[in-house]
Amino acid sequence: MATAANKKRQAATEAVEPNRAERRKRETRRKLLDAAHGLMARQGIDTTTIQQITDEADVGFGSFYNYFSSKDAIVEAICAETIESFGDALDTISEHVDDYAEVLSASIRYVVGKGGSDAKWGWFLIRTAFATPSVELGLLKRMSRDLHAGLRSGRFKADDEEATNVALGGIALSVIGSRLRGVLDGRAPELAATMALRMLGLPEKEAQEIATRPLPPIS
Amino acid sequence: MATAANKKRQAATEAVEPNRAERRKRETRRKLLDAAHGLMARQGIDTTTIQQITDEADVGFGSFYNYFSSKDAIVEAICAETIESFGDALDTISEHVDDYAEVLSASIRYVVGKGGSDAKWGWFLIRTAFATPSVELGLLKRMSRDLHAGLRSGRFKADDEEATNVALGGIALSVIGSRLRGVLDGRAPELAATMALRMLGLPEKEAQEIATRPLPPIS
Repeated sequence: MATAANKKRQAATEAVEPNRAERRKRETRRKLLDAAHGLMARQGIDTTTIQQITDEADVGFGSFYNYFSSKDAIVEAICAETIESFGDALDTISEHVDDYAEVLSASIRYVVGKGGSDAKWGWFLIRTAFATPSVELGLLKRMSRDLHAGLRSGRFKADDEEATNVALGGIALSVIGSRLRGVLDGRAPELAATMALRMLGLPEKEAQEIATRPLPPIS
Repeated sequence: MATAANKKRQAATEAVEPNRAERRKRETRRKLLDAAHGLMARQGIDTTTIQQITDEADVGFGSFYNYFSSKDAIVEAICAETIESFGDALDTISEHVDDYAEVLSASIRYVVGKGGSDAKWGWFLIRTAFATPSVELGLLKRMSRDLHAGLRSGRFKADDEEATNVALGGIALSVIGSRLRGVLDGRAPELAATMALRMLGLPEKEAQEIATRPLPPIS
């Protein structure tokens, strides 16, 4: 009887264990991601060490490498989870809007809106914007694609495409930073979009009108 | 004879010592300033500790307080020395130029030119731009003054003065960062000025023409 009971217990344990081990692994990975995200939002990627991440996550230093091969790998995972997924959602704007000016305006409004209200997300964006080239932000790549299409179609005007893309990123980041610090109010997203469109050659009134249209939905 | 010689030596020492002590004090202060400047350019103000500064300067931790009362105090000293002095030089632009558009354009060109070629100066500007409000940059205050004058005179147009000032700073910082990373070439200062003027409502051709005029001298 004792043996039968033991066998039963063991079978039950075997059925549960994989899930428990899986769950614990997921939890540790989550802890590492959250710790790294928070640290990098506060102090940037370059200054953050793996030691700091494992200390903050309360995980042994060596365990880090069971989940990520390097610091770059965890940065990529954070970007994929927080920034790329938001970028994917922004990609659906063009399903509802044809005008390149409105597409870019809506993207900027969404990014500035999220960055200015979600401090961890916003600071991560700011602190990582000037980090090593390997972590080029997906959002900037998307902005660059929308800018390119708008320039080719003649909707936008610019002396230099690359410099214009850099400037657009600078406007968005700077407005997010000022919003997070309470320097700008809730109109920040629309103001950033208006300024961006004006820089791209749209007349004042039109830029303002486009930047204050109802936002197209994102998925 | 020995006593006379000793007295002579002592008198000589007394005459020299104050200078030597003075010089050593100046040198230590210099070392602390350079160490803090370098650390903060690399990793920002918030993450830099007094311990790191004294380690980098190879000075005892306690000595720090013989020169500066706090981290904020050494930041202010660095700003005064490197940024404010440059800002003072920029103030002389308006002695040679009347047009607010050209004044702002020349300021942006000088700042982007210096920031993009002097890495320590440029990174310090970028890394400190979003630090605690107490270290508001003198350059932004100056830009704000020029923007205000241009708006009041009707030379510039903007929906919101504060947001426009924030965006101008964002364009300048982002172009500096991209220049330091080699993404933009030597035309960066003129491109940044052109984009800023377009954002402020100047027609394309006029913005371009003003941004490529010979630079007025600064002292």
